[in-house]
Amino acid sequence: MRLAELSARSGVPTATIKYYLREGLLPPGRRITATQAEYDEDHLRRLRLVRAMIQVGRIPVHSAREVLAALQDDSLDRNERLGTAVWALPHGPEPDESDPATQAARRTADALLDRLGWGHARPSGTAAPPAYGMLVTAITALARLGYPCAVEDLEPYAHTVERIAAADLDVVERYATPEEQVEAAVALTVLYEPVLLSLRRLAEAEESHRRFGGA
Amino acid sequence: MRLAELSARSGVPTATIKYYLREGLLPPGRRITATQAEYDEDHLRRLRLVRAMIQVGRIPVHSAREVLAALQDDSLDRNERLGTAVWALPHGPEPDESDPATQAARRTADALLDRLGWGHARPSGTAAPPAYGMLVTAITALARLGYPCAVEDLEPYAHTVERIAAADLDVVERYATPEEQVEAAVALTVLYEPVLLSLRRLAEAEESHRRFGGA
Repeated sequence: MRLAELSARSGVPTATIKYYLREGLLPPGRRITATQAEYDEDHLRRLRLVRAMIQVGRIPVHSAREVLAALQDDSLDRNERLGTAVWALPHGPEPDESDPATQAARRTADALLDRLGWGHARPSGTAAPPAYGMLVTAITALARLGYPCAVEDLEPYAHTVERIAAADLDVVERYATPEEQVEAAVALTVLYEPVLLSLRRLAEAEESHRRFGGA
Repeated sequence: MRLAELSARSGVPTATIKYYLREGLLPPGRRITATQAEYDEDHLRRLRLVRAMIQVGRIPVHSAREVLAALQDDSLDRNERLGTAVWALPHGPEPDESDPATQAARRTADALLDRLGWGHARPSGTAAPPAYGMLVTAITALARLGYPCAVEDLEPYAHTVERIAAADLDVVERYATPEEQVEAAVALTVLYEPVLLSLRRLAEAEESHRRFGGA
């Protein structure tokens, strides 16, 4: 298909597609004349993923480029590509290692992950999954402000989140090829975050009505 | 306690506390001399909540002020105050009502909430909970990008989130007074968002290893 059709089918303006092409977020089309190129279903799928990351996830262009590089790295298997791509998503501020509160939060995070048996979530060697740093930062904030954040407080949430991750991977497995699966995993990680957070606030309102509401 | 002790116990610099006082985010202390005021445990608790909203939740000052106004509105009961305070939290961009995709997403959201029996989450009269708008926006993005977002896709997530909301309210009920409970509900809604999102990414990595990992 030509650029105009790629734009119509994706809902992304042609100027934006050209910008993604210039930034290397979308591989070039197959050139058919000096001024025209041909695009295929792979371009459409990649365009949707880029859109999900940049417009919905508000992920910076350089981070999106890192995620895409991981997706295309043939030296990695599906599981490694998925992990590397999700690692490249932004994870907020790094924990402040000079802060004693960070050290305490790290011990809580480690004890939690041990109890859960999440062996791949722990730092190994020099590398820690970025989501591990995000968890440590979040626990540090809770602790500093005096809100509950002991292992026993966090564990029920973690067990519930295990079900969410299983649902996520069920959706991913509906896609046919490993490449599509990894792309879907990244897009769904980003696109389902506002779904989960909005459902949580609505569910809190329901639960509050149930417990505290009038007659 | 004096300003210096309030700062030491909260970990918030005195200049920041003075800024919150000027902005009306913290009620004035009891004046004891022309230049000194006395603060109490209520100030400390309120300061922690303001800190949670502004520093961790990155909530604009005017939104934080609205949340606090709802907390202090004695014409509302505990459930109403909790609902109004959580409503005042920022919820991202409003759905674009001129977009046909928004109308379709709204029908999906309504069908989902009907099926869940979440009667308080639906718009009633002219007012819709802001988290409802957030859900509609998220479904619109999924639909436009061609990712799964039918009622059947969303329902398993919603059921899991019901457990999260129940855990949230269990924590809230540990606090003694209705005022403390409502403050805790707002703070925990904000502070647990990065906990949940980081745990989800870690749990996805675990689940991916389990399903796709090597020997």
